[in-house]
Amino acid sequence: MSGAVDAAGTSRRVGVIGLGSMGYGIATALRAAGFDVAGCDVLQANRDRFAADGGRVANTPAEAAEGAAAIVSVVVNHEQTEKVLFGDAGCSATLAPNTVVISCATIPPRRADAFAARLAERSCAYLDAPISGGAARAARGELTIMASGSDEAFANAASVLDAIAARVFRLGSEPGTGSSFKLVNQLLAGVHIAAASEALMLAKKLGLDIRQVYDVITESAGNSWMFQDRMAHVVDGGFDSGSAVGIFVKDLGIVADVSRDLRAATPIASSALQMFLMTAAAGLESEGDASVARLYARVDGLEP
Amino acid sequence: MSGAVDAAGTSRRVGVIGLGSMGYGIATALRAAGFDVAGCDVLQANRDRFAADGGRVANTPAEAAEGAAAIVSVVVNHEQTEKVLFGDAGCSATLAPNTVVISCATIPPRRADAFAARLAERSCAYLDAPISGGAARAARGELTIMASGSDEAFANAASVLDAIAARVFRLGSEPGTGSSFKLVNQLLAGVHIAAASEALMLAKKLGLDIRQVYDVITESAGNSWMFQDRMAHVVDGGFDSGSAVGIFVKDLGIVADVSRDLRAATPIASSALQMFLMTAAAGLESEGDASVARLYARVDGLEP
Repeated sequence: MSGAVDAAGTSRRVGVIGLGSMGYGIATALRAAGFDVAGCDVLQANRDRFAADGGRVANTPAEAAEGAAAIVSVVVNHEQTEKVLFGDAGCSATLAPNTVVISCATIPPRRADAFAARLAERSCAYLDAPISGGAARAARGELTIMASGSDEAFANAASVLDAIAARVFRLGSEPGTGSSFKLVNQLLAGVHIAAASEALMLAKKLGLDIRQVYDVITESAGNSWMFQDRMAHVVDGGFDSGSAVGIFVKDLGIVADVSRDLRAATPIASSALQMFLMTAAAGLESEGDASVARLYARVDGLEP
Repeated sequence: MSGAVDAAGTSRRVGVIGLGSMGYGIATALRAAGFDVAGCDVLQANRDRFAADGGRVANTPAEAAEGAAAIVSVVVNHEQTEKVLFGDAGCSATLAPNTVVISCATIPPRRADAFAARLAERSCAYLDAPISGGAARAARGELTIMASGSDEAFANAASVLDAIAARVFRLGSEPGTGSSFKLVNQLLAGVHIAAASEALMLAKKLGLDIRQVYDVITESAGNSWMFQDRMAHVVDGGFDSGSAVGIFVKDLGIVADVSRDLRAATPIASSALQMFLMTAAAGLESEGDASVARLYARVDGLEP
């Protein structure tokens, strides 16, 4: 079975590769929308959770791709995307022509280009579709997607995107453009988390009431989406908001690599990367990304 | 004539020291609210503009303070505040007891402390009252003020604050607290302008349509108040928004000094300071603060 997943529902089989917090949410939203979802993950715990929830588990990406009209790849980086698509027991072993691959990982733009070219050889479309919004919005089908790809890729992905996203930015026909936009967003998001952590811990050193600082800043010119979102937890003494510290080590690492290749100066992003790296080095890599504030607190000699 | 400037209007004389864009706006808002304003500035051009607009010009801070129930000091830094208050022909020469000094400059918190102590010796109250909002909002009487000071300072300043501010954050009784809040805000604001410039110029290097980048980022997790405000001009090819580059050289310089004194780590702010410093060094110190994007454009080999 193959062909477009269309609104009329002629083909409703979708393979979801990666059942971490985001992939699990996406699979949940797709099932709620009536799709026949085959979910796959390298971790037994993630597979078990999906099965316990009534999900159909595939043992390999190849198995998940069997009979699917669309694949949603929700893995961490381009190495994992490569393996999922083209590795042993990867999707390419069973992928039928005209299947669309919706790739959600944040990856270097030129990797998206290369994936699209290799899938085109098999008459499959590639949608460069980095996501944002977090696990809770993923499960409600309310992600934001920064997408680029051919008209065919968008057409074949339409009903899946409808089910998983509140907002799809359609950013052109070139694979890589979606990833480029995501990269620019991640540069800002990462810098803003680090700056928010730095500012709030400076406020603490200054002897200010950090809850009052939160209230003032969120209504002032110093505000950012990330300050407002992440520091809400920090003023309550929590650091587990958002995705993991390691995600920004990766994404700001891509910013560093890409900007070095392009000869673009990114000194602020580079400082922010160092802060995430120190936080990871301090043993907090798997903790929420607001843990950068915890690193500042340790460095500054404050109780976290 | 002295005493509180009260809502009943028993004493409506106010001295405004500094008639640059912000001070001029404040003087305008006070006159519109019916105050008898004496304005003073070191620059002839600023005095002439005020006089041409029907304003009453004072030749020195001492003259502006004569008979005033309140002084609003709208100068750039603590050195100028010192001179205006206590220098030759400074306000202190004529300041009557119970006059309130509303000090709007962004200064190191301990300087605010010291000014308050010296004014207390003359039975005058000091309101530590850094402002934000820009010249247009100043003229409309819609500033945001981060203020701290004694109950007496707030009481005596009440009708003036009503006339010049849309929002007054009342941040406690200690002078220095208002300045501390402003410092935290400026750390974030400065970092966000530099990061916005860096991200937008990286986007240009990536070949993206920066207007589309603006539209996507302002609806995504990478957004900040400063990105939204300043980059709106940059996508139109303008850099003259906001205050001057030199203001952030100064304010991030205070962040650097204060955090060094406190032993608080501020590496992100430090990188942002370097970007403003390079922009100033490139001859753009008096240009709008979004000119940091112009420096990135030059460094990156892009047409600005």
